[in-house]
Amino acid sequence: MVVLGVDPGSLHTGYAVLNVVQNRQTLVEYGTLHLHKLNDHQLRLKHLFERLSDVIDRHLPDECAVEMPVYGKNPQSMLKLGRAQATAMLAALVREIPVQEYTPKEIKKSVTGNGNASKEQVWFMVRAILKIEEAQPKDGLDASDALAIALCHAQRKKFDAGPSYTGWDAFLRANPDRAK
Amino acid sequence: MVVLGVDPGSLHTGYAVLNVVQNRQTLVEYGTLHLHKLNDHQLRLKHLFERLSDVIDRHLPDECAVEMPVYGKNPQSMLKLGRAQATAMLAALVREIPVQEYTPKEIKKSVTGNGNASKEQVWFMVRAILKIEEAQPKDGLDASDALAIALCHAQRKKFDAGPSYTGWDAFLRANPDRAK
Repeated sequence: MVVLGVDPGSLHTGYAVLNVVQNRQTLVEYGTLHLHKLNDHQLRLKHLFERLSDVIDRHLPDECAVEMPVYGKNPQSMLKLGRAQATAMLAALVREIPVQEYTPKEIKKSVTGNGNASKEQVWFMVRAILKIEEAQPKDGLDASDALAIALCHAQRKKFDAGPSYTGWDAFLRANPDRAK
Repeated sequence: MVVLGVDPGSLHTGYAVLNVVQNRQTLVEYGTLHLHKLNDHQLRLKHLFERLSDVIDRHLPDECAVEMPVYGKNPQSMLKLGRAQATAMLAALVREIPVQEYTPKEIKKSVTGNGNASKEQVWFMVRAILKIEEAQPKDGLDASDALAIALCHAQRKKFDAGPSYTGWDAFLRANPDRAK
């Protein structure tokens, strides 16, 4: 299963594509779409939609996970966040790809075990799980957040589905100690 | 020129299509997309995008006008409004149709002369300008707001452009009294 994780923002949107097979997640691509250079917010939305559509068309994800914004106090920032979020979701929805939303707390808890982990702690765990060589996330912490979102979704799906074996061989590969 | 006016809302989105030739605006189609029956907000966004795309593909508007939300006090409603607004704008933007935003005050002032006019006063003027026979707006007041948004845009464009004549015949048609 290919999972797309998106951390939508009106200035920077992180995205990550993972390949998930059984218990193993492999990194396919991740990065940040920088929208702050465009000074018109309509152009930003259009650019975000088109660039995310490119990512989707390139990797054909089966499912998409998006970070649900925290309910801040500033109505104007909520409006901008709502716009960026809808744009990211629509890029997937118009292609009939199901979208799941997660709160920042759920994502952090799923990846680090602590719902209040810092961005650096999230990156530390993401890097360990996905065996990423770079010491710093390529393109900033928005991209590492997107990786955490995709990982959170992959783990949630695994938990929901429970163990599923497609044969004795697969069972042995998943439980090597049982063969002793 | 064909103008599409949209009053985006997460439960009800009004839309109106006008044909604008010189000083004359003719009503082509108007109505409300009802999204409240769908109990999933992602489905609502997808439905809104697809239904507005249908309207656009049917009438091929040259320009689109959207109501800018008032900055309310509730961050959660602003988030939903931002999502609905982005969805409406994207339906036009992905087809390279320019989108112009107007505040409720600008729209009311342009149509009734009073920035604080009631929805009923707006409908009264819209009905008179577009020679609509029905006493009540088809599909509720969201649809009549969309008509006002499209009218506001048509009048603004006329004001920006100033008089433009494509020949003596056109000039005479626009100014029949000068021929006396």
